[in-house]
Amino acid sequence: MKKNVLIIGAGGVAQVVAHKAAQNNDVLGDIHIASRTLEKCESIVKSVLDKKALKKPGIIKAHELDALDIEATKALIAKTRSQIVINVGSAFINMSVLEACIQTGAAYIDTAIHEDPDKVCETPPWYGNYEWKRRERCEKAGITAVLGAGFDPGVVNAYAALAVDEYFDEVSSIDIIDINAGSHGKYFATNFDPEINFREFTGKVYTWQNSQWQTNEMFEISRTDDLPVVGERTSYLSGHDELHSLSRNLDVPDIRFWMGFGEHYINVFTVLKNLGLLSEQPVRTAEGVEVVPLKVVKAVLPDPSSLAPEYTGKTCIGDLVKGKKDGADREVFIYNVADHEDAYAEVGSQGISYTAGVPPVAAAILVAKGTWDVHKMVNVEELPPQPFLGLLNRMGLQTSIRDEHGERDLSFDDWVPAKVEVGKLASKR
Amino acid sequence: MKKNVLIIGAGGVAQVVAHKAAQNNDVLGDIHIASRTLEKCESIVKSVLDKKALKKPGIIKAHELDALDIEATKALIAKTRSQIVINVGSAFINMSVLEACIQTGAAYIDTAIHEDPDKVCETPPWYGNYEWKRRERCEKAGITAVLGAGFDPGVVNAYAALAVDEYFDEVSSIDIIDINAGSHGKYFATNFDPEINFREFTGKVYTWQNSQWQTNEMFEISRTDDLPVVGERTSYLSGHDELHSLSRNLDVPDIRFWMGFGEHYINVFTVLKNLGLLSEQPVRTAEGVEVVPLKVVKAVLPDPSSLAPEYTGKTCIGDLVKGKKDGADREVFIYNVADHEDAYAEVGSQGISYTAGVPPVAAAILVAKGTWDVHKMVNVEELPPQPFLGLLNRMGLQTSIRDEHGERDLSFDDWVPAKVEVGKLASKR
Repeated sequence: MKKNVLIIGAGGVAQVVAHKAAQNNDVLGDIHIASRTLEKCESIVKSVLDKKALKKPGIIKAHELDALDIEATKALIAKTRSQIVINVGSAFINMSVLEACIQTGAAYIDTAIHEDPDKVCETPPWYGNYEWKRRERCEKAGITAVLGAGFDPGVVNAYAALAVDEYFDEVSSIDIIDINAGSHGKYFATNFDPEINFREFTGKVYTWQNSQWQTNEMFEISRTDDLPVVGERTSYLSGHDELHSLSRNLDVPDIRFWMGFGEHYINVFTVLKNLGLLSEQPVRTAEGVEVVPLKVVKAVLPDPSSLAPEYTGKTCIGDLVKGKKDGADREVFIYNVADHEDAYAEVGSQGISYTAGVPPVAAAILVAKGTWDVHKMVNVEELPPQPFLGLLNRMGLQTSIRDEHGERDLSFDDWVPAKVEVGKLASKR
Repeated sequence: MKKNVLIIGAGGVAQVVAHKAAQNNDVLGDIHIASRTLEKCESIVKSVLDKKALKKPGIIKAHELDALDIEATKALIAKTRSQIVINVGSAFINMSVLEACIQTGAAYIDTAIHEDPDKVCETPPWYGNYEWKRRERCEKAGITAVLGAGFDPGVVNAYAALAVDEYFDEVSSIDIIDINAGSHGKYFATNFDPEINFREFTGKVYTWQNSQWQTNEMFEISRTDDLPVVGERTSYLSGHDELHSLSRNLDVPDIRFWMGFGEHYINVFTVLKNLGLLSEQPVRTAEGVEVVPLKVVKAVLPDPSSLAPEYTGKTCIGDLVKGKKDGADREVFIYNVADHEDAYAEVGSQGISYTAGVPPVAAAILVAKGTWDVHKMVNVEELPPQPFLGLLNRMGLQTSIRDEHGERDLSFDDWVPAKVEVGKLASKR
């Protein structure tokens, strides 16, 4: 049993993580929230207390921390006696937070791949550039590190594992489709940090096709699907974190990611990109001010966390999996539908933050209880998906399926842990 | 006879001014070019010498000058013994350059209304906010100040005066239409300093209708005309300098300005404006850098002077004038067509800079010769248009007309100065 959770980051996702951790503090123990800006952490603590989210009386506390400072992070882990760290800060801090966990013995959970601020779109598989280089050290030190445990990456990796385990004898393709059919009512806004959001789409699009990496341009290839609840939606072939582990851990020749965009989003993105305003290379104004254009764009856009109160509509994110079962062709879509207004009512965040913030808390609970406390570095698809998805059903993210029998919710209540050594799971799939 | 010309500014228009002044140095004398950036002035001098543009052996020299520094500007006027100053620098420096002229006795010519960097779109008439407040001082000191002597404002004001003088008994409306049917081959660029260009369209649109100021939003009202050479073109009701003097100096109830835009320009402009990236109010990045978004946009856009070599196509700018002549309704379009490639071949600038840069040199020649040396502050429509337009015909900007007899070039060779006191011209019209 591990307990006491240190949440690093204080954006919209961290807000969800804090609320969900508070709702489960009987399992998770003390809750600490740390970021560069103390006031943001304090405002999350206030929101948790205002909503009376703590399941039982307990500690929830805000801290100021520069998470790039490994010694400071180690000291905070030690001072708060945190055995689990949930890193939902900027993707630039992953490696320093992981290092602090390795040196202190804390379990590490994150929701996105590490990025170097100066590099956009490195060589695939991206996990190989930073995270997986620490795999041996984690195993040697017995550190549990669950990588990419948000929704996508995260839940969609569990969907992929579930499909391979339970629905197919052989999988030929996995198409992860991410649709936000919600509306924030602003002229334009990004649902996450604009800097991270845009960086996803300014580089090459890497996808796994015919068992090798293929590159395309963003917005080059689209598909239109009639999806549960949100209806007919167009999405675009995009690069995304989960492809970089799924391609290594599953024996599936085609694994692609499709992100839904409206025409307006694409137009604004295209204008900004073509003008050079999404560049992370500094420019100098006529007055001699040196500044990164992307950071100026970020400064003029709405703060993503400000969108929540007005956000309406739903998200639909899932895995369209094709393959063979008992000799016949089969196709299933395993998915979740989340509602922006419901998310705001419960935890004060919009639906995108909600889908990203609930899963790492479910992961933390499974680590705390031992089910996922594997004492090594893993991606989500290397772990048994059923306890994770079952817990998420109870925590507000219902898993559903659409197959030849129609659409229905899935239950995992009957799942019993198999006597399978966790390290063998990946190779089994 | 006044002589020796100090050109202030070193952009695309200044380049044209320098070349045209050089081509007329038998009248204008020494030519001096001054701006904040000495290298830009030196590069213009080099371009003039490379093209052997000096009509006769003479002085052309580059100077470094902060034109907001009145004492420095006075000193440079004195040192260069310049009796005519052509100000084609930023619209922010007009008042300091004019002050230096008033104090030294030099004639002053500019091509755009003064602007305060912190204010966008002040109360009309705009000339009343800055320039016209110095009218009495100019008259008292006998200073010739010709305001707005570019193309628009400038030549279009002369077209208006010509229409009122020669083609109508009564004018009911003047619609100034400015079409750039050229192509620079870039994704997006502005033809002038982006800062000034965008400021024209971010404020309210003031027009003179029913003998009063009316306000509209930019891109709210459009018209489509079949114009000489450039064909069918859509233009949009816009605010513009010349309306602010024509409405005062001519007794015409409707005076409007229409700027041609393609859909792509409007889309990029709309995205930038709605995102707040055209704002002149500073923002602060997450890293604490304070910067004006518009200046960052300017920094990423192509330098307007870099467009010239690839620019193709033509401009068509003119006055569509309606009214009565001899009791009957009449409509004439007085216009110029300029060619981007011709402009580049002659003076190394694109057509927009060419149309803006030739007229102030024509004005300077008329001041030098005495025809326009009126020892007071005037707008172009207060001066006899025929010698100005006749000179422009010979300098590369041909005036044409389209009326009930078709399209043809106009000649002003037969014009003889009337015995009219210059100060009376405005009230006569």
